[in-house]
Amino acid sequence: MKQPLAQVRWERRTQRPLFALALAFAVAYAVPIVEPDASHEVVSACLAVEWVVWGAFALDYVVRLALAERRGQFVRSHWLDLCAVVLPLVQPLRLLRLVATLLLVGQRARMASQVRLTTYVAGSVVGLLMFGSLAVLSVERDSPNGNIKTLGDAVWWSFTTMTTVGYGDHAPTTGVGRVLAVGLMLSGIALLGVVTANIAAWFIARFEMDDVEERRQTEAIRLLTEEVRALRAEVAALSGEPVGDERVR
Amino acid sequence: MKQPLAQVRWERRTQRPLFALALAFAVAYAVPIVEPDASHEVVSACLAVEWVVWGAFALDYVVRLALAERRGQFVRSHWLDLCAVVLPLVQPLRLLRLVATLLLVGQRARMASQVRLTTYVAGSVVGLLMFGSLAVLSVERDSPNGNIKTLGDAVWWSFTTMTTVGYGDHAPTTGVGRVLAVGLMLSGIALLGVVTANIAAWFIARFEMDDVEERRQTEAIRLLTEEVRALRAEVAALSGEPVGDERVR
Amino acid sequence: MKQPLAQVRWERRTQRPLFALALAFAVAYAVPIVEPDASHEVVSACLAVEWVVWGAFALDYVVRLALAERRGQFVRSHWLDLCAVVLPLVQPLRLLRLVATLLLVGQRARMASQVRLTTYVAGSVVGLLMFGSLAVLSVERDSPNGNIKTLGDAVWWSFTTMTTVGYGDHAPTTGVGRVLAVGLMLSGIALLGVVTANIAAWFIARFEMDDVEERRQTEAIRLLTEEVRALRAEVAALSGEPVGDERVR
Amino acid sequence: MKQPLAQVRWERRTQRPLFALALAFAVAYAVPIVEPDASHEVVSACLAVEWVVWGAFALDYVVRLALAERRGQFVRSHWLDLCAVVLPLVQPLRLLRLVATLLLVGQRARMASQVRLTTYVAGSVVGLLMFGSLAVLSVERDSPNGNIKTLGDAVWWSFTTMTTVGYGDHAPTTGVGRVLAVGLMLSGIALLGVVTANIAAWFIARFEMDDVEERRQTEAIRLLTEEVRALRAEVAALSGEPVGDERVR
Repeated sequence: MKQPLAQVRWERRTQRPLFALALAFAVAYAVPIVEPDASHEVVSACLAVEWVVWGAFALDYVVRLALAERRGQFVRSHWLDLCAVVLPLVQPLRLLRLVATLLLVGQRARMASQVRLTTYVAGSVVGLLMFGSLAVLSVERDSPNGNIKTLGDAVWWSFTTMTTVGYGDHAPTTGVGRVLAVGLMLSGIALLGVVTANIAAWFIARFEMDDVEERRQTEAIRLLTEEVRALRAEVAALSGEPVGDERVR
Repeated sequence: MKQPLAQVRWERRTQRPLFALALAFAVAYAVPIVEPDASHEVVSACLAVEWVVWGAFALDYVVRLALAERRGQFVRSHWLDLCAVVLPLVQPLRLLRLVATLLLVGQRARMASQVRLTTYVAGSVVGLLMFGSLAVLSVERDSPNGNIKTLGDAVWWSFTTMTTVGYGDHAPTTGVGRVLAVGLMLSGIALLGVVTANIAAWFIARFEMDDVEERRQTEAIRLLTEEVRALRAEVAALSGEPVGDERVR
Repeated sequence: MKQPLAQVRWERRTQRPLFALALAFAVAYAVPIVEPDASHEVVSACLAVEWVVWGAFALDYVVRLALAERRGQFVRSHWLDLCAVVLPLVQPLRLLRLVATLLLVGQRARMASQVRLTTYVAGSVVGLLMFGSLAVLSVERDSPNGNIKTLGDAVWWSFTTMTTVGYGDHAPTTGVGRVLAVGLMLSGIALLGVVTANIAAWFIARFEMDDVEERRQTEAIRLLTEEVRALRAEVAALSGEPVGDERVR
Repeated sequence: MKQPLAQVRWERRTQRPLFALALAFAVAYAVPIVEPDASHEVVSACLAVEWVVWGAFALDYVVRLALAERRGQFVRSHWLDLCAVVLPLVQPLRLLRLVATLLLVGQRARMASQVRLTTYVAGSVVGLLMFGSLAVLSVERDSPNGNIKTLGDAVWWSFTTMTTVGYGDHAPTTGVGRVLAVGLMLSGIALLGVVTANIAAWFIARFEMDDVEERRQTEAIRLLTEEVRALRAEVAALSGEPVGDERVR
């Protein structure tokens, strides 16, 4: 809450570059999955981009830690950022790097109002759809019993999962694929909740019933104030002094 | 918001004719899909009706643009209308014409209250179900692996999709069919949100708890006002003048 | 709204007998479907019970119409009851009789509060599940491609449909079965909406944040009242009269 | 509500030990299902743990009954606890023991606020997922037509059911399995409702619109109080007495 000024300034300045880096990461992550026959150079370049982006995010974490006044508190309250930076170092958790990137960028956008939360959720849903499709495609393509073999199938499956429709014409068969699917399902439930809550909040805010009673109150207070002013004028007339605000403390 | 009077009048007058044209469009769109063996004359007539309706909507857009005071602002704030008029000219986006028609008619009904929004959503859901069924039937019927071959199957599939039940006994297999399906799924989530939000808003409006506290406040203010009036009467008695409202500003 | 007293009394008195008749109807409806090998006498008895119950509901409608002051208005505002009485006479709509019975009984329970609506919805959901299972079983059992052949399958299918899970291991294949399924799906969405809205209303009613501001207001008014009372005492001391409520109008 | 002090103290003291026992029960329940080839000694030990935990919960019920002031009322208002203790004695309802344990532990956590309800629901969802997976696995593994044969499949199926996705790649085929599935589906709907309601309540609490009106009221009351204070000062000046709070009752 009470962040030092230098930290706030750093976070404001780095927001756009980090978002651009996250997009670069997404592209570098997607290319080898979408094009499995890509040349060795392309794959290496993508891997290099992934590591450069990871390095930038790690550097950003270190700078923010250095700028923080109470470092112990910073580490505790930003444990998610630390996980996002450290976890992708473990090889099997490489898949988490995209989620981590999403989270790190999203953290910056401070959620203050309904509009921002909705934007954030909508952005996350699109990001998760992309990520879910690519990640599931990469693990299911090599599975002997898998039925998600093309990018089109993967995107289609992501949509049927996230909207909880679940036709079952495509479904993950590997353990990792199923864990990813559970993530998409839970995101879908959150999406549904946000959509419904938005509409409900909008409806309730427009409901006039509540306002009627409150407007009546404001009117009652206004009338009462008039009454008191009239009284004050009468008292002033009694004492022969002009009514003014000079005595109001 | 501050529309010129001529524009408002035009929109009010054209609402019903345009709605009738939209219905004619829906029929003309449906006939060649439901009856694939229809004679060439019927198909041509339907195509002609589609173009006439499109022309009417294009004309309506031009008239509204001409009646607008600030044309630049009109184009910017009605970009959806412009898309709806221009996009169907591109051949592969012909399917969008029905959605465009729905949107253009819906735009006219100014959403002010909960009742209108609900009516609009219910109408859109019915329209989208019809449109989704017809459009998916038209693209899936010719697909070799498709399993949506009759109008009955298409309508049934639309319902299972929109309610997010998703049995999977019928599912689109082509790219266009799947894009249409995603549209239906998202509409279904919106429908669910509107239904829930309506019930929630209705429940919350009836909750008496909040009112109790507010009624207590209004009562407190009423009592206070009595007190002040009594005081004013006493002060008046002091000064020997009658209590009147003549001094209330 | 302003019903004559005789009508209100009649509706109150007949509520329990009609509910009992509806249960008898449900049993008579269920027996020939659950036991397709039942003897001819049993089937005839069930049919007789169905007609007797229908007769009782028709009689009830006639009595209420006779007791109504403005008959034209009664017919218009109770068109649902009229449909429920007349429609089952048409043979193919025989299936609607159970829904009609549910509706007629439900109409009696005047929805006033959240608790009653929830009870009504929960009751309807159970009723619709029963009805849906039986009706779908009766039409799908004779379908050559059908996969709902036992009561257990039908009940299981009803649950997967109403909760919008939709495994697809069982799904109706006939037109009537699918129309019934759509009814169940829409009921499921309504059920979900009512559950969510209940929880949301309960949460919002408990939210203390709003109350804090209002309690602060009530406190402010209380303090102000003390202030005015003190002032009045001072004025009374000035004029030498005791403070009393005798002058409060 | 008005529980005797001894009972409250007992419930507070036993909360943690009973929770630990419930966890031990969950492990003892899971081991023979996850490891069907476990040695006879392990299975016996697990069974013994199950019975010891059951005994502890039965003892807890008896102690609370003994500490209660009005025993008849205690039995009536805690009928759920009684069921949870008595029902598992019947052999085919052995599966209910885990649910009973969950319920008994959950009952202790008095639901007061939104946070607690959400925690309780989240905990229940995790517990039900675990329980559902294990119970369905234990009944479906021995079914000839079953398709849930491993713990991985069972967990995956639980998730697809609870989120109402329902791919249908795995589905229970036995009666008991389907009853368990219905329980999971209904829990999923409750989960969805709680998620949505939480977001909606959070949105509505943050809505500034309502606050604007209320802040205006508070401001109006503040101004009025200033006015009255000024008036009191003037009256005091009239009477020559100093303004003090000594006369405020």
